[in-house]
Amino acid sequence: MYHAEIQLRVRYAETDQMGYVYYGNYALYYEVARVESLRKLGFSYKELEAMGIMLPVLENKSKFHRPGKYDELLTIKVTIPEKPALKMKFVYEVFNETNELINTGETVLVFIKKETMKPCRMPKVMDDLLSTYFH
Amino acid sequence: MYHAEIQLRVRYAETDQMGYVYYGNYALYYEVARVESLRKLGFSYKELEAMGIMLPVLENKSKFHRPGKYDELLTIKVTIPEKPALKMKFVYEVFNETNELINTGETVLVFIKKETMKPCRMPKVMDDLLSTYFH
Amino acid sequence: MYHAEIQLRVRYAETDQMGYVYYGNYALYYEVARVESLRKLGFSYKELEAMGIMLPVLENKSKFHRPGKYDELLTIKVTIPEKPALKMKFVYEVFNETNELINTGETVLVFIKKETMKPCRMPKVMDDLLSTYFH
Amino acid sequence: MYHAEIQLRVRYAETDQMGYVYYGNYALYYEVARVESLRKLGFSYKELEAMGIMLPVLENKSKFHRPGKYDELLTIKVTIPEKPALKMKFVYEVFNETNELINTGETVLVFIKKETMKPCRMPKVMDDLLSTYFH
Repeated sequence: MYHAEIQLRVRYAETDQMGYVYYGNYALYYEVARVESLRKLGFSYKELEAMGIMLPVLENKSKFHRPGKYDELLTIKVTIPEKPALKMKFVYEVFNETNELINTGETVLVFIKKETMKPCRMPKVMDDLLSTYFH
Repeated sequence: MYHAEIQLRVRYAETDQMGYVYYGNYALYYEVARVESLRKLGFSYKELEAMGIMLPVLENKSKFHRPGKYDELLTIKVTIPEKPALKMKFVYEVFNETNELINTGETVLVFIKKETMKPCRMPKVMDDLLSTYFH
Repeated sequence: MYHAEIQLRVRYAETDQMGYVYYGNYALYYEVARVESLRKLGFSYKELEAMGIMLPVLENKSKFHRPGKYDELLTIKVTIPEKPALKMKFVYEVFNETNELINTGETVLVFIKKETMKPCRMPKVMDDLLSTYFH
Repeated sequence: MYHAEIQLRVRYAETDQMGYVYYGNYALYYEVARVESLRKLGFSYKELEAMGIMLPVLENKSKFHRPGKYDELLTIKVTIPEKPALKMKFVYEVFNETNELINTGETVLVFIKKETMKPCRMPKVMDDLLSTYFH
């Protein structure tokens, strides 16, 4: 398993008139969590696209346990539970400033070769970086 | 079961640099689908909040079958599969202009009394409107 | 001058915890106003990109006179005040359901040839459609 | 004058199919710039709302000099050019990673007492913090 922890602050734009983080914005938080967890590993998602590989989302799930609030510094614990091959799964736990679990989710993405628009295997550079975390 | 069909057009703002609708934006489309399907039934979500009831999201799931594209007029088939009580479930099927299924999803929401912040039953006016669809 | 009038409904996602339409969302409304006003003229922005021409924004200005509110059906009066050449200007007036002017704005865009990334003239098909409105 | 400098990274969600930061998202960046520049001063916008004061936007202007790109760490230089009284102005300069100026803008906001919905003066705590920067 690969674990990482990232933080981000709730923007005013991300709240709605209920005074909560709008439910659709957790997908943005998950994106930040994915990208920053890969960066911590030593890999940038931008490079992936530069290599001609896209990583579109196949599935996304969220459970909303407590409201997220404006200006809170959220902590997202992100896990890659299985070694990716054609697909890559991320699992998230989002905590507020008082360490309450406010949201859990998971996303499945698929490696696509831009040239052929067909699924492909995770590039070797990512595989090498991730392989130490999976035995 | 209650069924409704609504249409919306993909905005430029909703695309990303992959040239697809950004995955997080389907939550916004689902919101439009929920609100417009209730309006077709004769009920406005705005009234619900005016009655002191909130309807936050508890769970949301999406599967992304094909990319959504800029300027497409999407058709969303929305279903309320079970008669709501404390919770309300919506199921969505999103079709593009050539009638391909591009996205499926479901959302579970919960009725909350604003005054007490406790779950409550669906208000009578909604119950009356929906009851003809469930036997 | 070319005038058009379009309508759109405020989404929950577009409100913030002040209970107003978040100020950044008027740029999205302006985009819808531009695209739909061109469609009424007989031209789709999507075609423009298919012709290898981009139309990025150079300048954008907004004044916020009154708050926009959730679920309101807004009316946007959009004007192209001068015949476009290398640049194209749009002027907007946004009205709420009780016909109060809530927002005014203007956007200047520039025609860019994707191949060279250099400014270019408005394509002939747009010129022909617009020329009857400017003498 | 009060100056501050903040950084933020462009999210995938914020790009559009042109491959640029969507023009409406600079308003979100300005919001982050305002809030973080006040936090550096020792004041949180959240406190302001807790004091019963809202700060809605009256005017917003942007010029787009160069495209913002995905994953870039942008630097925003934010300036409060005049001592706020009933209104507060912020001026922004947004730079990309190679220190090119990509966007300039300004926003005028107004202090509103929530109870009366009337304009009011900047609260004393903000005045005290800002006064050392204006003579």
